[in-house]
Amino acid sequence: MSVFTTLEFAEVDAWLKGYTIGHLTRLEGIASGIENTNYFVTTSHGEYVLTVFEKLTANELPWYLELMAHLAGRGIPCPNPVGRLDDGYLGELKGKPASLVTRLRGRSITQPTTTACAEVGELLADMHQAGKSYTKPMANPRGAAWFAGTAERVRPMLSADNAALLVEELGFAQAAFKLTDLPGGVVHVDLFRDNVLFEGERLSGVIDFYFACQDRWLYDLAITVNDWCVTEAGELDPARAQALVAAYHKVRPLTAAERAAWVAMLRAGALRFWLSRLYDLHFPRPGELTHAKDPTHFERIVRHHRAQPELLQGLLP
Amino acid sequence: MSVFTTLEFAEVDAWLKGYTIGHLTRLEGIASGIENTNYFVTTSHGEYVLTVFEKLTANELPWYLELMAHLAGRGIPCPNPVGRLDDGYLGELKGKPASLVTRLRGRSITQPTTTACAEVGELLADMHQAGKSYTKPMANPRGAAWFAGTAERVRPMLSADNAALLVEELGFAQAAFKLTDLPGGVVHVDLFRDNVLFEGERLSGVIDFYFACQDRWLYDLAITVNDWCVTEAGELDPARAQALVAAYHKVRPLTAAERAAWVAMLRAGALRFWLSRLYDLHFPRPGELTHAKDPTHFERIVRHHRAQPELLQGLLP
Repeated sequence: MSVFTTLEFAEVDAWLKGYTIGHLTRLEGIASGIENTNYFVTTSHGEYVLTVFEKLTANELPWYLELMAHLAGRGIPCPNPVGRLDDGYLGELKGKPASLVTRLRGRSITQPTTTACAEVGELLADMHQAGKSYTKPMANPRGAAWFAGTAERVRPMLSADNAALLVEELGFAQAAFKLTDLPGGVVHVDLFRDNVLFEGERLSGVIDFYFACQDRWLYDLAITVNDWCVTEAGELDPARAQALVAAYHKVRPLTAAERAAWVAMLRAGALRFWLSRLYDLHFPRPGELTHAKDPTHFERIVRHHRAQPELLQGLLP
Repeated sequence: MSVFTTLEFAEVDAWLKGYTIGHLTRLEGIASGIENTNYFVTTSHGEYVLTVFEKLTANELPWYLELMAHLAGRGIPCPNPVGRLDDGYLGELKGKPASLVTRLRGRSITQPTTTACAEVGELLADMHQAGKSYTKPMANPRGAAWFAGTAERVRPMLSADNAALLVEELGFAQAAFKLTDLPGGVVHVDLFRDNVLFEGERLSGVIDFYFACQDRWLYDLAITVNDWCVTEAGELDPARAQALVAAYHKVRPLTAAERAAWVAMLRAGALRFWLSRLYDLHFPRPGELTHAKDPTHFERIVRHHRAQPELLQGLLP
């Protein structure tokens, strides 16, 4: 259960006077979510999600909220922050920053088809295109320095075999991150199955933009493929991967430099999540609920990627 | 049938490359609408309405499209123009300005209940509030000068009795328009039953902003009451009117000056539509499809309003 801040009906109804979305008719806590408090809010004008931010601050939040508004205004089916009467996106509840966004329809899927993967690829390319005009800078907090620092922390916890693998893959990723000819812009870099909603066959939503930043588009594509097109055994499913990449490429054609960097980005993208899961497992934050995910899934992906570069390269259209 | 400009699937699909809303899956002409060509557009990301503007120009349109985006971004359930890759709201099809807006759910209702009227009142007040921060000027093209000019044109067509009524009401309205103490801002001034959508019991949409402008809020409220709360015989239904005005007042309390001007605004609002309907009836535009609505409905409202000022004043909370 993740309602860290409890809200009463009357207090939310009063808080809504800072908006122009009608009066509150229903308030319901949302049990999922790890870091923030979320409520479904139904008013006379529509359905929304109210978030009370437990960690992100009022200084940090505008970048994310304005990005979502920017993308939603260009047809990306993401949560759209509702503007307040005082003209910002950020209010305050119980002394914490709080926002309202539109509630999306649909649910996440766990067994994606090639059709679903194609929709995800098209959506990702559209999101990259739509983000071109969102130029507020935001470096990736999980960039090269984070890779190096995290690897140093977790390496002593690993078997000799895995420690050697980590060192090799880190060197490989750091070399890839030095490439300067890869185009980029706004990236989601967490477009996993649980962050995409489908309503029937149609992709109806993309959520959770709090890892978004400015980085290489190809890296985002690689991270997406590593989740949507990989089996439980950590092996790439070529049919799904080809469908996703082809749909992406149709909207934003990959450049020659991106083709050359593709395999390296798939490996770097897998390493990124192997590292963070290792870190979360070995260094749980005090008082944190236990949400640590299994790092071995990404270790397997890393090993499979290393073993079959030709297969990975062959995924490109 | 009002598809003046015929569009082919392939040409719309190609045109959508200027957007980030996915690829076209369905295109369907919309038969309603008097002045523009409208199509329902379904893409892999959502449902939209494509409008080819047959009269409004690329210079005139941004005020309306930016207003809708402004209101939609503040939770008003109005069509939300989709931003293009080149960052405007306006494209071009067959040499005419064209836009895409989100498609709203719901349908208009012809027999509003007091509950529906309360929702309309709340929505109108929220729209007035949300419009406060939209400060781009736009005078009402149907202001005092239009009243005078139109009355002059239609008066010779009327019976002596109606001509006398028109002259009296015009003088009364012109006096009301001289009041300087009425607050205002963005107004819809065409919030009739056919411009509001309901999904079940809930107000799900407000459409057709092409009469919107900056004017007195009370005038907008009067025009809305004159449609939603009037019987077929042109008589006010006090229960519906009280529900609408009370819900409005709860969000944006009426001022003392507005209370004093209320009856005059109801009469001026009725005269506005009596005049325009008389004009459309007696001076149809050449080549125009026949959509002229019956002016006598508003003549009856004018007469009823004149006859019962106490009842009108008593509608205020």
